[in-house]
This record gives sequence, structure tokens and C-alpha cells, in this order.
Amino acid sequence: MQIEEKYMARCIALARKGAGNTSPNPMVGAVIVHQDKIIGEGYHRRCGEAHAEVNAVGMVQDKSLLTDSTLYVSLEPCSHFGKTPPCVDLIIKHRIPRVVVGCKDPFPEVSGRGVARLQEAGVEVITGVLEQEARDLNRYFMTSQLARRPYIILKWAQSRDGFIDGARKGGVHVPVVLSTPQTMRMVHKLRSEVDAIMVGTNTVLNDNPSLTVRSWSGRNPVRVIVDRTLRIPHGFHVLDGAVRTLVFTEKAPGNRPGVEYVEANFTSDILDTVLSELHARKIQSLLVEGGTELLNSFIAANLWDEIRVETAHVYLKDGVPAPALNLLPQSTILHNDSKIDWYRRTDF
Amino acid sequence: MQIEEKYMARCIALARKGAGNTSPNPMVGAVIVHQDKIIGEGYHRRCGEAHAEVNAVGMVQDKSLLTDSTLYVSLEPCSHFGKTPPCVDLIIKHRIPRVVVGCKDPFPEVSGRGVARLQEAGVEVITGVLEQEARDLNRYFMTSQLARRPYIILKWAQSRDGFIDGARKGGVHVPVVLSTPQTMRMVHKLRSEVDAIMVGTNTVLNDNPSLTVRSWSGRNPVRVIVDRTLRIPHGFHVLDGAVRTLVFTEKAPGNRPGVEYVEANFTSDILDTVLSELHARKIQSLLVEGGTELLNSFIAANLWDEIRVETAHVYLKDGVPAPALNLLPQSTILHNDSKIDWYRRTDF
Repeated sequence: MQIEEKYMARCIALARKGAGNTSPNPMVGAVIVHQDKIIGEGYHRRCGEAHAEVNAVGMVQDKSLLTDSTLYVSLEPCSHFGKTPPCVDLIIKHRIPRVVVGCKDPFPEVSGRGVARLQEAGVEVITGVLEQEARDLNRYFMTSQLARRPYIILKWAQSRDGFIDGARKGGVHVPVVLSTPQTMRMVHKLRSEVDAIMVGTNTVLNDNPSLTVRSWSGRNPVRVIVDRTLRIPHGFHVLDGAVRTLVFTEKAPGNRPGVEYVEANFTSDILDTVLSELHARKIQSLLVEGGTELLNSFIAANLWDEIRVETAHVYLKDGVPAPALNLLPQSTILHNDSKIDWYRRTDF
Repeated sequence: MQIEEKYMARCIALARKGAGNTSPNPMVGAVIVHQDKIIGEGYHRRCGEAHAEVNAVGMVQDKSLLTDSTLYVSLEPCSHFGKTPPCVDLIIKHRIPRVVVGCKDPFPEVSGRGVARLQEAGVEVITGVLEQEARDLNRYFMTSQLARRPYIILKWAQSRDGFIDGARKGGVHVPVVLSTPQTMRMVHKLRSEVDAIMVGTNTVLNDNPSLTVRSWSGRNPVRVIVDRTLRIPHGFHVLDGAVRTLVFTEKAPGNRPGVEYVEANFTSDILDTVLSELHARKIQSLLVEGGTELLNSFIAANLWDEIRVETAHVYLKDGVPAPALNLLPQSTILHNDSKIDWYRRTDF
């Protein structure tokens, strides 16, 4: 099995290169191996473009080798016509005799159909190699398909003594820097890989954040703001129209360039409304960056999949308390004076 | 500075794609930005092939934009003829008006020469953006150039109670598995990124390891064995000739295919001899995987740059004690039941 896992690990590493660009499609990587040598590899680069299998086959110079090769692919090859023809047809056409699959398609209706089509055509198929990692790779996509809501990541930075922000001195808000340039870049990388980013009204009014990707190269996520009574003035960054922005509000005014107002009933559960509206817009992942009130409401509703808490070596003594978590982190990274705890609700 | 750092972070991420393939050259990444948009990027893929700057310029479709662009590059552009013409000439030829450099060339004799050549030609040059990270990226290369020995990484796995291996039961050695499939893949990835791997004679005789890269896709490091009196029988994996292997011994027999015997004086300091012979063979990084005796001799001689200790959630109660380190790790990764501590002797 070691050799199968080695090439599947390569598929998964390739797939990750598409992070941030494939949504609403999954990330997929593929490798073609002839006599223990990689003769072609590829990944799904961007929604609408070629699938991983097509790119991998395209890279093989001597196509006659395909009839004696194994195709490794992190996700079950598709058997239906989407924006591109079915990959199972490509495999059958090139008479690739053996296919190794990471994990099956998550849709219950079509899961296993690609594998069955290949087997009917006489292709040997092995499934479930590094299955956990292959599912994990596409946890945003999987959650969107199966739970019909975006994958939710809560994120905050706190002081060693548990404050998310400093105290207000005489009504003046002095922002406290709790991240380092390195961890800031990691957060911006994370932003570039999610479909949407959300903060509460008070965070917008206090910090006037732009919520864009600046310390990393990547595209900006859709901004999601909940502003029940439209308290945020037009001059604020989140309403500048530079990035697609959704504002959930009680009574929607007309849309403005880049800013869509979505009317929501604030007497019922507003988080459910937001999540289902985001799902309807094919948003598969949501990063919630604060403030405490919004984060606590997600935690209280048990609406989260991952939480990232950065703890700085700073004592504030007073201020806005960070959300409380009575959980053990699944992984912890200690680096110099900073600590980053990752919590995961589910393994896929 | 944020925008400079963003593109330099991209250069460094690109450069890393060459990990394991560029030695004895450094890893280098380059990005060309026109009006805050990346119009070309590249990295040094393999020793002997094009430099990062050449690949980045080659990717730019409309070359006329170059006269209004900034070139970001993680390492100072070369000003001398090597296997390829000087990159400063390329920059000047295309009239790129602005160059941002991560770190300067490590050679004291030529450091700053590329920058000076550009400035003489009227190019605006900014240096030292993410300098620490840019130097860190090429710590193998830098150590080789400056210390004239390979960068040394010591690595072992131990039980929670500090044993590197189990006790011998009636002379029989029962190997204990202290790594998980995930951490094993990470070790094989590390193997694929170093130039050489070394173990002691007893480890070879006890475990008969092949020391190859099997759980990751990548090339095998050169195997380095110290076998003073040639106790290792020919049938053992390390002598199978499948991978280039150096055997340090008191009295060298004739070489065999793939196996080079290097005569060394074992009355003087054998580690110094090994390291200088490796340096002479342009080996810039060495991973030492055991056993305890060999690891302890490197630690006692203060000959190490990085140490990776994996601690498994297993108690052995008895066995071979792991090397003792009275140091604080620079970073720690806790993941499920495993802990990986990284120690670094120097920051570059």
C-alpha cells in the first residue's frame, strides 16, 4: 500500500495548488504512473477549466504508455457531463487499465457511479487510498454538499489573559496588535482560500476593516456584514464596493455597485438565514473574524467546523473577553512567543 | 511595506517548489508585478536549468509592460556568468525599472554586486524585504557556503518515557513503531529535500533500512554510512547500489556500482572528516537518522543546525535511551497523540 499512498499524497499536494480558485468545484489532483515513474500529473486549476485527469493525461508525451499505466486521482472521476465531458470516458478512451481513487464523490445519488462505470469497462479500480486526507482536502466542498451550508471557520487572536481587545479609555478605542507579521500572513492566506469573510457591525464600526487579502497573493473573499439597522456609514471600507459585499439588514435599500443588501427577518434565527443565503450563492466556506458577540453566537448555536485561536504573549489585564471554549485543541503550534490552537468539530 | 512583503512571500512560496531539486544551487522565486497585478512568475526548478528571473520574464506575454513593472526576487540577481548568463543583464535589457530583493548573495566576495550593477544602470533597488524568511529558505545553501559543511539535521522518534528503541528480548531485536503514517510521510518528504542521509553501523545491522524515499514523491538522498571495519554484509539494503552510497571506512576496498568507499582516519575526528568529504562532493544538507550513539556524537560536537524529535504516546519502560537535549524547542506541533519538537541552533 505504501506505493499507492505515496502517489495519492502527491495527488493531494497537487490538488491544494488550486486552493481558493476551484470553488464551487472541489480541489482535485491526478498523477499518471508508468513503471513507478510519473509520466503526467495535473490538478483542477480553476472552476470552469479542465479537470485534474484531463491535465494529467494532456501532460503525457507518449500516449501509448497509458495502456500500461495507473491513474491516481484524489476524488472519484466524474461520470456526468458538466462544463467538461465525463472523465471516466477519457480514462476508457485512453485504455488506462488501473485507477486508484482517494475518496468517492460526496453526492449520495452519484457516489460510486464513476467507479462502477470504470469497472464495467474492465478498468481495475482501487478506492479509499488516503481516504481521510482526500476527504479532508475538500472539507469546504463536502460540508456544502452534505450539510447544505458553508464550512464555518471561527478565528480570533487573544492576549495571554484572554482578552480579544483592549479596554476603552474614556470612550476611545485603541486597537491592540495581537498577531505577528508571520501569523498575519497566514491569516491573509486563509482569507484567500475561503469564499466569504464575516464580521459583526460593532467590529466594522470600531476598526473599519477592509477584510481584503493584502499580506498574501490571492483573490478576496466575499464580505458578509450583518447590519440590522444600517448603522455603518457609507464611507467605511466594507461598503466601498471594491470587493463583492453582502449586507444582511432588516429593510434593504437598493443595491449599490458591489454591495448587495439582503433583507432578513431578525426575529427568527439570523445565523440560519445568513448561512442559507450564502449556500444559495454557492459560498462553500465562511471565515468569521469577530467580534466576540458574533463569534459567541456561532459557538452557542454549535455552528462551526473549525476554530483558530492565536494567543499572543501579551497581557492586557482588562478589555473585551475572548469567547470561551471548553475544548481541547486538535493541534497546537507553538512558535517563539505565539501559540495557535486549532479546534476541529468533525473529521471527515 | 505590506505590498512588498506580500509579493516577496509569493516569491518564497514559489522558490520552495524547487525544494530537493536545485542543490547545489539555491531555491529562488521571482514575481513580476505591473500595476498591482502579477504578470509573470517563476522559480528555479532544477540545477542547470533557467534561473527564477528568466522564467518569470519568459511568462510575461506583453513584454512592453516590463518597462513599467517591479521585479520581486527572493535572492539577489546574479551578476556573473554561470551555466546561464547574468540575470542583471536580463533585467537591464528589458528595462525593468524597479527590483525588490529578499536577501543578498551569501558569498562575501560577490554579495551586493548584483544590486550595485543594477543601480549603476539606473534601476531602483530595494533590499531586505522578508530578509529573514529569504535567508531561512536557503539555510542549507547558506550554511554550505558560509560554514563550508552541510547543514545538519538530527532526527529521531522516541517514546513518551524517552526511549528511542525497545529492549532486546533474549538477543532478539523487536522494532518498535513510534511514528504514524502521517509523520512517516513527513519524514520521507524531508528525506526528499536533503542531499544526504546518514545512519550508524549498528542501526544498519539492527534494522537493515533502505533509507530511500518511499512514502513521498521525490528523489532519494545520497546514503552515508560509517562502517569502520566493514561489518555490514553485502546483502544489506544500503549496499544494494540502488542509490548512490558513500561508506566511510578505515581501509577502503574497491568501489562497487553505486557504492563509493572513502578511506578515513578513525583516530582523528571522524565527523569532521565525513563533513568535509561531503562538502567536497557539494552535499549541502545531511539528515542524521540514528542511532543514539551517532546522534549523541553530533550533539556532543555541537555539530547540528536543526533537530526534529517526534514523541509518540507510547511507554516502553525499558530500552535504548534517546539522546538528551537540555534545550527549549523553537516550535512544537501537537497533533492528536503525537508531538513534534523542532530545535534550531541558529537563525539565519
